[in-house]
Amino acid sequence: MSPEKSLLLTDLYELTMMQGYHYHRMEGLATFELFVRKLPKNRNFLVFAGLEQLLSFVEEARFEEEEIHWLAQQGFKKDFLDYLKNFRFQGDIYAMAEGTIFFPFEPVLRITAPIAQAQILESRLMNIIHYQTLIASKAIRFYLVAAEKKLVEFGLRRAHGSEASLFAARASFIAGFSATSNVLAGKMFSIPVTGTMAHSFVQAHDVEELAFYNYAVANPRNVTLLIDTYDTERAAKHILSLAPRLREKGITIEAVRLDSGDLDYLSRSVRSILDSGGLKETKIFVSGSLDEYKLEELVKSGAPIDGFGIGTSLDTSSDCPYLDCVYKLQEYEGKPRRKRSTGKATWPGSKQLFRYFNDSGIMQKDLICLAEENYPAVALLQPVMRQGKRILPKEDLGEIQRRTLRSLGNLPPRLKTLQPAQTLYPVEFSPSLVNLKDKLEREEIQG
Amino acid sequence: MSPEKSLLLTDLYELTMMQGYHYHRMEGLATFELFVRKLPKNRNFLVFAGLEQLLSFVEEARFEEEEIHWLAQQGFKKDFLDYLKNFRFQGDIYAMAEGTIFFPFEPVLRITAPIAQAQILESRLMNIIHYQTLIASKAIRFYLVAAEKKLVEFGLRRAHGSEASLFAARASFIAGFSATSNVLAGKMFSIPVTGTMAHSFVQAHDVEELAFYNYAVANPRNVTLLIDTYDTERAAKHILSLAPRLREKGITIEAVRLDSGDLDYLSRSVRSILDSGGLKETKIFVSGSLDEYKLEELVKSGAPIDGFGIGTSLDTSSDCPYLDCVYKLQEYEGKPRRKRSTGKATWPGSKQLFRYFNDSGIMQKDLICLAEENYPAVALLQPVMRQGKRILPKEDLGEIQRRTLRSLGNLPPRLKTLQPAQTLYPVEFSPSLVNLKDKLEREEIQG
Repeated sequence: MSPEKSLLLTDLYELTMMQGYHYHRMEGLATFELFVRKLPKNRNFLVFAGLEQLLSFVEEARFEEEEIHWLAQQGFKKDFLDYLKNFRFQGDIYAMAEGTIFFPFEPVLRITAPIAQAQILESRLMNIIHYQTLIASKAIRFYLVAAEKKLVEFGLRRAHGSEASLFAARASFIAGFSATSNVLAGKMFSIPVTGTMAHSFVQAHDVEELAFYNYAVANPRNVTLLIDTYDTERAAKHILSLAPRLREKGITIEAVRLDSGDLDYLSRSVRSILDSGGLKETKIFVSGSLDEYKLEELVKSGAPIDGFGIGTSLDTSSDCPYLDCVYKLQEYEGKPRRKRSTGKATWPGSKQLFRYFNDSGIMQKDLICLAEENYPAVALLQPVMRQGKRILPKEDLGEIQRRTLRSLGNLPPRLKTLQPAQTLYPVEFSPSLVNLKDKLEREEIQG
Repeated sequence: MSPEKSLLLTDLYELTMMQGYHYHRMEGLATFELFVRKLPKNRNFLVFAGLEQLLSFVEEARFEEEEIHWLAQQGFKKDFLDYLKNFRFQGDIYAMAEGTIFFPFEPVLRITAPIAQAQILESRLMNIIHYQTLIASKAIRFYLVAAEKKLVEFGLRRAHGSEASLFAARASFIAGFSATSNVLAGKMFSIPVTGTMAHSFVQAHDVEELAFYNYAVANPRNVTLLIDTYDTERAAKHILSLAPRLREKGITIEAVRLDSGDLDYLSRSVRSILDSGGLKETKIFVSGSLDEYKLEELVKSGAPIDGFGIGTSLDTSSDCPYLDCVYKLQEYEGKPRRKRSTGKATWPGSKQLFRYFNDSGIMQKDLICLAEENYPAVALLQPVMRQGKRILPKEDLGEIQRRTLRSLGNLPPRLKTLQPAQTLYPVEFSPSLVNLKDKLEREEIQG
């Protein structure tokens, strides 16, 4: 079984707790919720992503014989292992739609299932949702400052492993990117795949122009030539003499790529060289350790750049490589539960989240309430799985992207900045929820 | 085919360049080297890791029929696709041993193969080596400040995807960790797996003491109880009355875990409570958003803590989530090559790396030279694959860990700090290498 599908991709304590629940016949229904405890610095909002991979993981989740055999060697009990043989997740899941903008303390996902079933999912569930949400929330920052430009995900080499690279391509596409360089991501998620050439191809030829010619002839579609291996402006001039030779063969130089140096200066200089030779249609694509701040600078300065390749800073969410998200037990056997650990206390009970919009469709406030409450607003948690069967069909990624960008369109403009907003988005708690929390606190003190 | 083994897990340009090499019958031998361009802030050295996964990827690398079919739909040419059908890597690889300490500009890996074969490996090769090296280099910082403590990798939930979590467990074990909570990592890499319990287990019981009792009875081996769900010190006192009841059943409380609050204060207070009840053998294990600085502080203050669970800061290398590593063409058809891009120029030629030690075995300096040169010192790049067959047998992970710690023992003490050292480790370039670079620069100017 491939590692990403294995139920052993979990923390040991999920299994020992599960053995505990099984041993003591604790089979009551539990509700767990996933939420982020606080916004990282430099984020005014987050973007939910990863639900598709979670649902497919949960639906297929089972223990293989060989895995059970291995667990036996680790000292798990026969009774428990027999139970694992027939393990299937049979619970319900409510979740936000992928691409939904959200804020701290808002449940993005709620699971209700016999406690052992809800517990065993914890580690991998967070692993899947955390990373894609992290990356969608980072990627949208590039979109915020360069929505008119072509944004391409380039981060495979420095993403944290294979799955991170694939998920980063998916999550950034959700958040407004146009394409990825990751071939397998393109195949798996139907994301457009684009690419240029590397310095090595140029270096492997004695003469740069020959490298350009050879590349274009062998790859006549979507020719993008990397022109900074030796001297960017000189290479741009050589492009002028190369273009007619390629045109004779029916090949167009779609774009040139700059990967180093002063990108503002060079893009202007290269643009003027290309224009002077009649290559007004040849686009300029740039890359090289770019983050959203450099993008904002280049876009604001009016540098004639058509597209950006974004790698490391995106795939590692380098300014903020994790979110403080948690998966917490909120209810067991119908009774609300909360944790009181210093600095980590939680809101009890099974919850719903409503969003209010003004007449122009701009988000006004969110309200976190108990699951059974109803408000005249949009309920963001919707059923996506019932009794272990997904009811949310697999969504088209383009559709998710459009939803994300609509969601962004509804966001108050003050939050659409790279810098922290002066006034955060208002998230309120319903009176019933506040009452429940107060009641539990009083009981705890008296107890 | 599972994603992590697919050759399509690559950047598109590797395939288009490959098509270029194939189209123009460029089949000459190329040498590429992998190196890090600069030390991140707060790192005085790096630790090489990930070779095992790289070798097994390279040895098995091939294109599946279904993948070739998909590539055909993307416009790749029939001739090229026929060639991919029989693709095997047939080159040579030299590399450092895993666990070797290294510095910027030092080649950690050198590949010589027909250029298309060496090129196609680039993206995934970096993806594998970069992340494990990043994590080993982060993990060793925890070991630097807490070598006497038990260090356990806990980061699955916030690691960047499934493979990151597995690689993080492996790389941190290499760098001195004792165990992981990741069950699958334990199974795959034979790393000890340990775990405690989560707050949810406590919350699912009406009374905390019952949760402790139930957990211990169901999991009688290696009982570690989490005591901070409500009131840490009160819970510690309850442990005193629970211990004799469990002892009657032959169960020992191995440890308690603290996951929040003032860990220095609480560990002392809990230690004294446990000691007062005769539980001197019960260990104290702590976790909760720990990084190496907090560890250093707790260790220096003498807090009576026996072990640490380290999650997010380790698995994401949160203070530095990437290394500036590159894979560069150094030689093609016997001719040295270099890139001159602004700020990214490289040292040309196929290289070797020698390390000098003083009489006490402490590292004195490193020397980067041409591959054919020989110096009276230890050559760090050794053959690990010849003509596509690995010659380095799979190594025992414990053996790699011992090598890493020996390597650390040889490091000048001034570099073994969390803070940047005043004087960096000396890395020199051989006269022949300097001459070659100068010669190429002169030719470039004249040419």
